[in-house]
Amino acid sequence: MNDTWIECVPNISEGRDLSRIDAFEQALSSVPGTVLLDRTSDVDHNRTVMTFVAHPGSVIEAAVRLAAKAAEVIDLNHHHGVHPRLGALDILPFVPLGNATVDQCVALAHEAGARIWNEVGIPVYFYDAAALRNDRVRLENVRRGQFEGLRAAVVGDESKRPDLGGPSLHPTAGAVIVGARKILIAYNINLKSTDLGLAKSIARRIRASSGGFPSVKALGVPLQSRGLVQVAINFTDFEQTPVHVVYSEVCRLAAERGIEIEESELIGLMPRTALEAAAAGLLKLSHFDSRRVIENRVEA
Amino acid sequence: MNDTWIECVPNISEGRDLSRIDAFEQALSSVPGTVLLDRTSDVDHNRTVMTFVAHPGSVIEAAVRLAAKAAEVIDLNHHHGVHPRLGALDILPFVPLGNATVDQCVALAHEAGARIWNEVGIPVYFYDAAALRNDRVRLENVRRGQFEGLRAAVVGDESKRPDLGGPSLHPTAGAVIVGARKILIAYNINLKSTDLGLAKSIARRIRASSGGFPSVKALGVPLQSRGLVQVAINFTDFEQTPVHVVYSEVCRLAAERGIEIEESELIGLMPRTALEAAAAGLLKLSHFDSRRVIENRVEA
Repeated sequence: MNDTWIECVPNISEGRDLSRIDAFEQALSSVPGTVLLDRTSDVDHNRTVMTFVAHPGSVIEAAVRLAAKAAEVIDLNHHHGVHPRLGALDILPFVPLGNATVDQCVALAHEAGARIWNEVGIPVYFYDAAALRNDRVRLENVRRGQFEGLRAAVVGDESKRPDLGGPSLHPTAGAVIVGARKILIAYNINLKSTDLGLAKSIARRIRASSGGFPSVKALGVPLQSRGLVQVAINFTDFEQTPVHVVYSEVCRLAAERGIEIEESELIGLMPRTALEAAAAGLLKLSHFDSRRVIENRVEA
Repeated sequence: MNDTWIECVPNISEGRDLSRIDAFEQALSSVPGTVLLDRTSDVDHNRTVMTFVAHPGSVIEAAVRLAAKAAEVIDLNHHHGVHPRLGALDILPFVPLGNATVDQCVALAHEAGARIWNEVGIPVYFYDAAALRNDRVRLENVRRGQFEGLRAAVVGDESKRPDLGGPSLHPTAGAVIVGARKILIAYNINLKSTDLGLAKSIARRIRASSGGFPSVKALGVPLQSRGLVQVAINFTDFEQTPVHVVYSEVCRLAAERGIEIEESELIGLMPRTALEAAAAGLLKLSHFDSRRVIENRVEA
């Protein structure tokens, strides 16, 4: 892939009404050059996550149309779900693929945010690499209080106000949180065990926040329907900490307690280089690089 | 890779004279649409292996020009090397990549063979999937006796004569052995040990010819300069027996004797699906398929 492709992963506050969700998809597909890779809706979360790719010239137009469509059909005053949300189009991260860079995605995020405020009239917060303030890098910090809490807070507290537009939130569509980040890999490892304490202790050992691997988030959770426990992992920078390094460490930690790995699972998609690195790492392949893959050479 | 690409791996009986080897490369590159991926010459073998890819429309023209150039500059009567050879252009296998099929490569091999005899005047044997006789499927059988032995044998023994042309071999260029086969992966596993017996016994356990994995060839060899032993492996059908399955078994057999794997190494190139399968297998990824790789989806 020599081309510059951008992945965009809008999270929309509607996961129940299929006719609305189809309308979101149509808003995206109405822009030539967009390719929808995945669409996952969750009824409990009342949220839909779309993963699409496009060239830089198309990705902003698609995002703006989606923001407009979400604002048209969603009223957050009547929205309920277990997942926190601030906007009808809640988050809008831009992610570099192929030769694209995070810096390029920051520029796209800022341009998309400006158009969403100027053309659709919804205020915008910027997060992650696109953040304009240090206290807005982390998504959790931006969204704290959600629609209802922030709508009230911005009235008296200037520090809570949107980066673009406002100062009030949109009365029904809230605000859009626009960002740029490296690609994220969501990957779970299921243990042949019902010992939730084990899954939680392994998660603590591997995650960055408790001194484990950098760029790794992890939780131990029960999979009650399957009689297993899971270490649920996000890799926010798979080049810094590769997937297979964490997999091997989880195997080792589980084996110390006599527990085997049942399987692992990928949520959504992963980039080719992450998979190539996993194969090379687990096969202990010396001197491997992507040029050893025939198709990579042919395409180049 | 949606396109139909053919890999072609000509083995030429010259590994010492760089000006000749460069002339072979020029003969290939003179055909538009050919991409040389790898060129390896060995002085002891006195042999050069080229790996190139092209669309079906270009691959035969390049092969014919290479056969002509090899016949022009090589005289087998003065060729010496440790590797067996029958022709100046010794073997010419066609290999399907992407959407191409072995059947398509059989047709290409037969067309290339016909042109090499009709236009260059060098007789042709067909081997592997392109063989016209059961006793010529295995390359070793076709080449037995080499240039000097077969040149004499064809005079009195009709069963030794070429499939196309002849009945004599070409007086200086011998014959070209043209074939079609699945892609071959050459892959070695180096053990942290100097015990050649261990490497040989592991090779026996895994190779098809002694009841191991189908489509696997293996030898135990010493790596004297590095103080290690090696299990040297060819996968002639990596879909039937994947690389990681053999890797895991070699790890297990070595571990039984208290020996670890130092590293593994790829000779030449490998196809993307083999690497994807290795990653998925070694990570125990459930429900994995190529559609979970972002770039595969974007390219599709």
